[in-house]
Amino acid sequence: MSKKNNKPQFTKLSELGEFEVINHITKDFLVKNPSTVYGIGDDAAVMDFKNKQVVISSDMLVEGIHFNLSYVPLKHLGYKSVVANLSDIYSMNAICSQVTVNIAVSNRFTLESLEELYFGINAACKKYGVDLVGGDTTSSNKGLIISISAIGALDLKSIVKRSGAKKNDLIVVSGDLGSAYMGLQILEREKEVFKVNPGNQPDLSKYKYLIQRQLKPEARKDIIDYFESIKLIPTSMIDISDGLSSEIIHICKNSKVGCDLYEDKIPMSEELMSSCEEFNLNSTTVALSGGEDYELLFTIDQKDFEKIKNSPDFSVIGHITDQKKGINLVTKAKQKITITSQGWKSF
Amino acid sequence: MSKKNNKPQFTKLSELGEFEVINHITKDFLVKNPSTVYGIGDDAAVMDFKNKQVVISSDMLVEGIHFNLSYVPLKHLGYKSVVANLSDIYSMNAICSQVTVNIAVSNRFTLESLEELYFGINAACKKYGVDLVGGDTTSSNKGLIISISAIGALDLKSIVKRSGAKKNDLIVVSGDLGSAYMGLQILEREKEVFKVNPGNQPDLSKYKYLIQRQLKPEARKDIIDYFESIKLIPTSMIDISDGLSSEIIHICKNSKVGCDLYEDKIPMSEELMSSCEEFNLNSTTVALSGGEDYELLFTIDQKDFEKIKNSPDFSVIGHITDQKKGINLVTKAKQKITITSQGWKSF
Repeated sequence: MSKKNNKPQFTKLSELGEFEVINHITKDFLVKNPSTVYGIGDDAAVMDFKNKQVVISSDMLVEGIHFNLSYVPLKHLGYKSVVANLSDIYSMNAICSQVTVNIAVSNRFTLESLEELYFGINAACKKYGVDLVGGDTTSSNKGLIISISAIGALDLKSIVKRSGAKKNDLIVVSGDLGSAYMGLQILEREKEVFKVNPGNQPDLSKYKYLIQRQLKPEARKDIIDYFESIKLIPTSMIDISDGLSSEIIHICKNSKVGCDLYEDKIPMSEELMSSCEEFNLNSTTVALSGGEDYELLFTIDQKDFEKIKNSPDFSVIGHITDQKKGINLVTKAKQKITITSQGWKSF
Repeated sequence: MSKKNNKPQFTKLSELGEFEVINHITKDFLVKNPSTVYGIGDDAAVMDFKNKQVVISSDMLVEGIHFNLSYVPLKHLGYKSVVANLSDIYSMNAICSQVTVNIAVSNRFTLESLEELYFGINAACKKYGVDLVGGDTTSSNKGLIISISAIGALDLKSIVKRSGAKKNDLIVVSGDLGSAYMGLQILEREKEVFKVNPGNQPDLSKYKYLIQRQLKPEARKDIIDYFESIKLIPTSMIDISDGLSSEIIHICKNSKVGCDLYEDKIPMSEELMSSCEEFNLNSTTVALSGGEDYELLFTIDQKDFEKIKNSPDFSVIGHITDQKKGINLVTKAKQKITITSQGWKSF
């Protein structure tokens, strides 16, 4: 955008109309996937996956419910919205190739703010090799609503569902858990401090990792690629968007099994542990219940342990048992307690 | 739902939580399409279209912008939301087989009101042979927001885009135009009357057709099926969601052609014409600019005229010309005027 007199430019969306807004914000999006036959510009997008099967997942994010624009930059929001959807595709052991993005915005948003949002969407599309192929841009009565569908392809023989875990399988998680939730606590606290003292310049450098996990999470495409390279197909998989407790319950219920998870095996970052002390929070509770880490939780047959044991990115946190044994956490004090879902609830 | 003491039951969504709400409202949805491999219940749905190409379209509807619940029953809203998306798939000359539905609702909605909405969604899915395979249900700060993605399949050799119209092609439209818009005017008027006199029982029987076109439109799958049976592939096609003016401009711009449309050929219902008189509106303006008819606007090679000339469902309303001739309406008085888009703008 040209800037007159170096002042930032604010263009009302009503000055342009729907079609011009869409043309403007999508002009920087290039189609890269060979599976994208026709992208934006017709009533529907067309894709060709040859003889592969097609995967689709949809998610909706509402301002004031899922995000707070007082501390989430629009660029990051756009990036994260895409990442959250890609994560659902990767958790099927599939690769994502296209997204459609529907947004509704109130009249407080300018063209420039939409550009910020789509800059983030485009950054995520580029990073993960995904094409934006369609969507809808409309007005809302209140706030910003983002609805994304992600489309991918897989071979049915390599699909991984929530329902395939078997007794004695190992339960594995990628990365570390709880940091995204803790990042949110820090941002919330700073927002309160700012209300009282707007002149205060907070030093957030020691929370950098936690805040990054909250504002700019990544989806674990690298792990899906790695699985392919080591010829590993997990028996079940889910992404951790709502918290470890909630996700392991999904796997156990869908697979009709029980599990023992070991508290001392749950991976946590140094930053999480030190800020849990500062906030007087139990780090296990945060790691179990905090969502939005977008790590992968999966189960593998014991014979496949050799394939992953040397990867620093994976933690074996427990094993699958009979359904009648229940869904348990074995605490550091060797007590067995039933895991209940403390995951994020939107109602 | 069981009704205690014959009183209607109202269940707060917060009493159930997200997963239970989703389980409850999707329990009546059955998978019927052989292309649906896995529907609701995992991180993503899986489809198998064999060697066909895949089509996807997404739309968002916002309460207070696209619909007004003071005169739109939730059942009809659910039905129409699906129909609007299917229409986009049909306008590519493709068949729709799956939808995902994301909704955000404020806390004024009860479980019973969501059931109403999903009853309508399910009715449309059944009527058009489409499976609901996924989606998201979350809360909003204000009102109801519905975002739908429709998925279908086609053979690339039968795809019809907006961009294929050629000079001398005939311009054809299905059904009649403007009635859905007129139905909205009648509902708006009744709403105002009701505000002044809530005891008034309006007699809307003479507007039945117009109101039905507004509240419960149908998508023209029958025409796509008919095209296949008569081996007709239009040169270009679009569905009329924003109004004839806006859609013919899309076809002409995308195809780099001009056109002459004939005012006296535009199909209108008797009911539209009589209520236009009553409302002192110009029926041509309503037919050109009123949206939401979900009829199909398409162009055919002149040699294909024989194939459609006996169908009462089609009206030839003009022909394609050189781009430099412009996009024109030839009025009943034989005057040529440039068509400008008066279509629905959301900003």
